[in-house]
Amino acid sequence: MKKMINKPENIVEEMVSGMLKAYPEYLGRVEDLPVIVRKDKKVGKTALISGGGSGHEPSHAGFVGYGMLDGAVAGEVFTSPSADKVYEAIKAVNSGAGVLLIIKNYSGDVMNFEMAAEMAAMEEIEVKKIVVDDDIAVENSTYTVGRRGIAGTVLVHKMVGAAAEKGYSLGELEALGNKVIGRTKTLGMALEPCMVPTTGKLSFELADDEVEIGLGIHGEPGTHREKIQPADVHVDHILEKIFKESDLKENDEVAVLINGLGETTLMELFIINNRVAQVLEEKNIKVVDTIVGNYMTSLDMGGFSITLTKLDNEMKELLKAKADTPAFKRF
Amino acid sequence: MKKMINKPENIVEEMVSGMLKAYPEYLGRVEDLPVIVRKDKKVGKTALISGGGSGHEPSHAGFVGYGMLDGAVAGEVFTSPSADKVYEAIKAVNSGAGVLLIIKNYSGDVMNFEMAAEMAAMEEIEVKKIVVDDDIAVENSTYTVGRRGIAGTVLVHKMVGAAAEKGYSLGELEALGNKVIGRTKTLGMALEPCMVPTTGKLSFELADDEVEIGLGIHGEPGTHREKIQPADVHVDHILEKIFKESDLKENDEVAVLINGLGETTLMELFIINNRVAQVLEEKNIKVVDTIVGNYMTSLDMGGFSITLTKLDNEMKELLKAKADTPAFKRF
Repeated sequence: MKKMINKPENIVEEMVSGMLKAYPEYLGRVEDLPVIVRKDKKVGKTALISGGGSGHEPSHAGFVGYGMLDGAVAGEVFTSPSADKVYEAIKAVNSGAGVLLIIKNYSGDVMNFEMAAEMAAMEEIEVKKIVVDDDIAVENSTYTVGRRGIAGTVLVHKMVGAAAEKGYSLGELEALGNKVIGRTKTLGMALEPCMVPTTGKLSFELADDEVEIGLGIHGEPGTHREKIQPADVHVDHILEKIFKESDLKENDEVAVLINGLGETTLMELFIINNRVAQVLEEKNIKVVDTIVGNYMTSLDMGGFSITLTKLDNEMKELLKAKADTPAFKRF
Repeated sequence: MKKMINKPENIVEEMVSGMLKAYPEYLGRVEDLPVIVRKDKKVGKTALISGGGSGHEPSHAGFVGYGMLDGAVAGEVFTSPSADKVYEAIKAVNSGAGVLLIIKNYSGDVMNFEMAAEMAAMEEIEVKKIVVDDDIAVENSTYTVGRRGIAGTVLVHKMVGAAAEKGYSLGELEALGNKVIGRTKTLGMALEPCMVPTTGKLSFELADDEVEIGLGIHGEPGTHREKIQPADVHVDHILEKIFKESDLKENDEVAVLINGLGETTLMELFIINNRVAQVLEEKNIKVVDTIVGNYMTSLDMGGFSITLTKLDNEMKELLKAKADTPAFKRF
């Protein structure tokens, strides 16, 4: 797994710089920092910030723009950004209506984002946070207390971002965010490790005929390994586990996100979606929106995750609302 | 490179079916065929069709929608669709203003699309074709006479699609298409082979420290192999070759497409774009539009290509025009 990089220590800076050069109409940055902000700062709107380690592109900078995020903070590969960088992001995006931090539940991210919120509070910037923990695979791990935040985070960006655009207050956004998180359940599966470009090493080993269920987006252990089976068999097992964690019943409406981790092809993601849609139809659960693609990757890891979010009318409207960002657009 | 599929012989059907289930508001199909058509057929507009072997997703079905294609015909993996399928696509999308076929230059595609055009002519449907040959790597090969069509095809879809939406006639679209093709130059590089899911085999072998310049999107040979070097060195070499084939000079305006072949991460594509933008700036060539991502893939192959299209005012306007398709949206 050769990589097109220059020096490992320059990866994040060159990536951020290449992203800004690709999307000058969407993105700006806080000078000299891996902090990407929306080009057209909207005064009077509560601002949304997300971020975390790099390696999950297009998350999160790809979602900076109308109807989603106002800022994204990029750490080194698979490493939380430091509190001072998050603090700089908060100062850059705040326009007086407060800042909501959307944090994936990893101990490092939670610690650094919380510390940044405290620093901002001393400057009298009102900051609240929501912590995404959509991954139903495992509870506590060495990486985090509670469940991990993975691909479902993108649906949180979408719905909470649309609400911010509509004028929801900071407190209302926090409440909405927690509602969306509570209704969003994800389970993934890895087929191949990723190559971490800063170390030149594979993130884990998996036998030629083996997959790992519930493996995390940084290569954290999942629940178990099993022999690879036809796609439909794995999809059915994953959906069963998600159904157990959701209170989905007949006539409910859901959003579906089939997320690729990197190497897995769109061809395969559509084959997976074909089965997901069949199963939901058999259960009389209505799919209101389907998103298929690489949204929360794990470098070039092989694998995918399935996310289901149970929608209510408010969430449906927010999901379908306009978004205009480099990596997610909706008319 | 394990794959999430069911039976190899069902890959294309399940992929098409999963795609239709994901984008019911965008896509319809010709019953029982891997022929994807625009949901809202626009009467009076010249219709655009593209297609080819599967394995290049999101090409081409992902570009069916407003401002790009009206139909896409999917063959088996890396195999041209048969003439009768292309003929069914022509009949499905024709609304009386003729049909333009956008063909990537491979012998099988050209033969089958031309045969379909002849079948349609017998039904008095006016059909013209344009053949994309943007790949500057090699001239004739066992796969095609002349140069191959690769990622630059997506820019042809975009500009010619926007013109069709504006009411250009079939003849005008053919002329525009040939202008865009003549100004579009691409060169790619492979880092890792892809796994062909129908055979379970890797498409070629490449040493751990080797890359192949100009390798095609089906694994066809390129110009030569060389030792892997820092990204900027490869980018500079590729750009030099593209400049030799273009008549780009100071103050010219270009579109840039940094296309990933599958496994290569967005992180790397942005690092590549960072250097491309630097070199173009040094040469005083103005980047009007940059597109970065996996648009013309080769299953899960590692690698990328760089495309430059020299723009005039007409092309600039068409490039920036609205597009609303599953895989490419522009406000």
